[in-house]
Amino acid sequence: MNSAKLEKVFNPRSIAVIGATRNPIKLGHKILKAVIGSKFCGQVYPVGIQTGPICCLKSYRSVLEISDKVDLALVAVPSSCVLKVIEECGLKGVSHAIVFSAGFSETKNGMKLEQELIDTADRSGTRIIGPNTNGIRNFMGLNATFTPKEKFRIGNVGIICQSGGYGRFLLEYGEAEALGFSKFINLGNSCDVGFAEVLDFLACDPFTKVILLHIEGFKKEGEGRKFMIAAKRAVKSKPIIVLKTGRMSSARRAIQSHTGSLAGSDLMYDGLFRQTRILRVCDGVEMIDIAKALSILRVRASGNSVAILTNLGGPAIVASDICESNGLAVNELREETKSKLGAILPSTASYGNPVDLASAWPNLKLYYNTLSILVDDAGVDAVILIVFIETRTSNIPAHDIAALSDQYSKPIVACILSPYRRIMSQYIMAFEREGIPCYRSLERAAKAMVGVIKCSRESARDNS
Amino acid sequence: MNSAKLEKVFNPRSIAVIGATRNPIKLGHKILKAVIGSKFCGQVYPVGIQTGPICCLKSYRSVLEISDKVDLALVAVPSSCVLKVIEECGLKGVSHAIVFSAGFSETKNGMKLEQELIDTADRSGTRIIGPNTNGIRNFMGLNATFTPKEKFRIGNVGIICQSGGYGRFLLEYGEAEALGFSKFINLGNSCDVGFAEVLDFLACDPFTKVILLHIEGFKKEGEGRKFMIAAKRAVKSKPIIVLKTGRMSSARRAIQSHTGSLAGSDLMYDGLFRQTRILRVCDGVEMIDIAKALSILRVRASGNSVAILTNLGGPAIVASDICESNGLAVNELREETKSKLGAILPSTASYGNPVDLASAWPNLKLYYNTLSILVDDAGVDAVILIVFIETRTSNIPAHDIAALSDQYSKPIVACILSPYRRIMSQYIMAFEREGIPCYRSLERAAKAMVGVIKCSRESARDNS
Repeated sequence: MNSAKLEKVFNPRSIAVIGATRNPIKLGHKILKAVIGSKFCGQVYPVGIQTGPICCLKSYRSVLEISDKVDLALVAVPSSCVLKVIEECGLKGVSHAIVFSAGFSETKNGMKLEQELIDTADRSGTRIIGPNTNGIRNFMGLNATFTPKEKFRIGNVGIICQSGGYGRFLLEYGEAEALGFSKFINLGNSCDVGFAEVLDFLACDPFTKVILLHIEGFKKEGEGRKFMIAAKRAVKSKPIIVLKTGRMSSARRAIQSHTGSLAGSDLMYDGLFRQTRILRVCDGVEMIDIAKALSILRVRASGNSVAILTNLGGPAIVASDICESNGLAVNELREETKSKLGAILPSTASYGNPVDLASAWPNLKLYYNTLSILVDDAGVDAVILIVFIETRTSNIPAHDIAALSDQYSKPIVACILSPYRRIMSQYIMAFEREGIPCYRSLERAAKAMVGVIKCSRESARDNS
Repeated sequence: MNSAKLEKVFNPRSIAVIGATRNPIKLGHKILKAVIGSKFCGQVYPVGIQTGPICCLKSYRSVLEISDKVDLALVAVPSSCVLKVIEECGLKGVSHAIVFSAGFSETKNGMKLEQELIDTADRSGTRIIGPNTNGIRNFMGLNATFTPKEKFRIGNVGIICQSGGYGRFLLEYGEAEALGFSKFINLGNSCDVGFAEVLDFLACDPFTKVILLHIEGFKKEGEGRKFMIAAKRAVKSKPIIVLKTGRMSSARRAIQSHTGSLAGSDLMYDGLFRQTRILRVCDGVEMIDIAKALSILRVRASGNSVAILTNLGGPAIVASDICESNGLAVNELREETKSKLGAILPSTASYGNPVDLASAWPNLKLYYNTLSILVDDAGVDAVILIVFIETRTSNIPAHDIAALSDQYSKPIVACILSPYRRIMSQYIMAFEREGIPCYRSLERAAKAMVGVIKCSRESARDNS
């Protein structure tokens, strides 16, 4: 594992921004702004053709003029100047360069230039992220992208994406869903540093709990094999969810002109993900929903059997369909469990699974007791709660529910819906703070649970 | 078609609330409150065992005491009293009764009582909605449910649901997604008025543009045949989307104790929906997303070929995958179209389809011209826009885009995302006002387009 090397990318002590300028519409300016405006505390050296200070910092004509050590170069110069810059970075002993510049293998005429870039990097000793990348972010430190104003919650979800655009979609959409992020890296054309190396890094990163991957296609020979080794290792310690595009012919056609990757046979990738036991999804909404659950939950499921506890019958039936059609079991409860429930629930309730509280709602003591009996059933591995809150007064004991989840080591996911928007938001916040992921649609809650259980199974299999 | 008869249910001139009481926790009180608090303008007669006025209205001991004509009875008395109430309604000449009371075929002991209710209704001439129903709503008039405080946007989406609980989920979730509703009816145990009759009614209702169906299972012999006739007729004038639960065994088991329906063979239902050309979905989120698109769009697609216009490459590729894997075509554009685009777009843009504007963004004149060329391609039936708004100043001409959609009669659906939440919301509102449905996830935008095109095809086939 060469994961330690990427430490200089996410936590450098000094940075040169090459292509820095005072012109605010230029990439080099935006990147400098992003670095300065972020939580990065090290030294920043603008390198550019303008003389005089740039953004209040002394500027240099070349990275070679800087007397101190430079860990990381952020390169935003025309593609024709990139080779020279990388050569200088090598001479200067710069560990890594993030090459934002486009005009390489994603264009017809740039294939040759990218090969030259690879050769130059090999010779110089400076490792390359990119080219044609949106950069990287350490959400607790450096923002090395060209979007200085985009703020995100700090959390434990790491993103590795081939497309910077789709990476931004994931970030923005995740932010809207209250997800928090640890690290973000856009590999772009990934001529040098590839998926395997970043996977190794994030697998060891103590701030990352869940890894999201967006892949258009591997570019280099042997990359698939490297990826497989890294993924098999990483999945032992944290769940990995992948969105591999280019499933269909129209998308494969577009990928070629986007990052210059060969999308390849989808079956081959599918086999790779199965072998490495990475969870594959086809939809970014599902990816974010599952990531949220994995990010919040403190426990994993030891099997695929769910119980559904509801205060409305119809919605639970829809959830039941979604769980079972996605490979989970919604089994009848054990006779012993049913007897226990029968002793406390009114005759209007049904407890075949789903357990429908009917007129027992909103008796919260009874709610807690019912859930206690459910998690105590050895045939139940996880619980989905469907809660329709109709009164302003009900006060579901989120803390006690989370304690049950911890005690029995069974994940609990909830769908909370109410006509009282503010109350609903308060509930969702309270639940999620305690470690119970919440959704406003039962379909999304059920699909998130499907993802959680699939990831739990993979980890359980590995640890056994 | 006996659709006219249900006019008395949604637009009665006078209502008796039977089981009315001053006790605020009782169903009969909540229903009375809902009726009085709604936009219903007719006469309301509380009927109950308490003497003196109820909610400021003179009360009656029996519907027979009311001297004026009564169109609709709302019945919330214990199940053991329902038969007598319906007999009296018959004598009084009440056209329809909505029976909220539970304790019929959804319970083991209530099967016989429900059969007696059917017989009584037959004899008395009063038609029954329910029993075990949450009631009905005309969003421009009567709220005959027990949820007086739930307010919803007025719109053109009608809901027919077997489960009141799932109906409430659809309403609440739809409201959160800014969907507006026309009529809502919860059939409950549907011992008398069934899906076919309500479909007939909504098909003719000028305020309803899209019909959503939630079905657990048909209950009566011959109901499938009636449904098929009604659905075939209704789908000619408006799109119908169905969520049929009980796909899997666990859900089928639960349905029996919920509305007492036989979920039946899923293949049988699937065949029925195919034959009637109703769009089947398995997920309420998808249902609401498609309903929103159909509710807002003014035009239908004449084929299944979409063009994708984007300012970010990666996201468009994901959308492309979703469209093609769901049966849409994302074909290369015609040579003529490509030449026209080549003449105006910079070399960084790609226009195989998806069309990626790259550095041509945010030139809005160029944006409009590109879209004009796209919709002018005879091989393009619909367009998905993916817009990532990075600056506060860009001002996409929603009105002009909608005009293109109208002129060429090609539906346009958009995904708008931005780090600037307020600007994003303003854009979404502006677009939707003009007739362009918007989503905050490209996956949901693409899936909504899939639904729109499938529904368009059905209607096109019928009208040809």
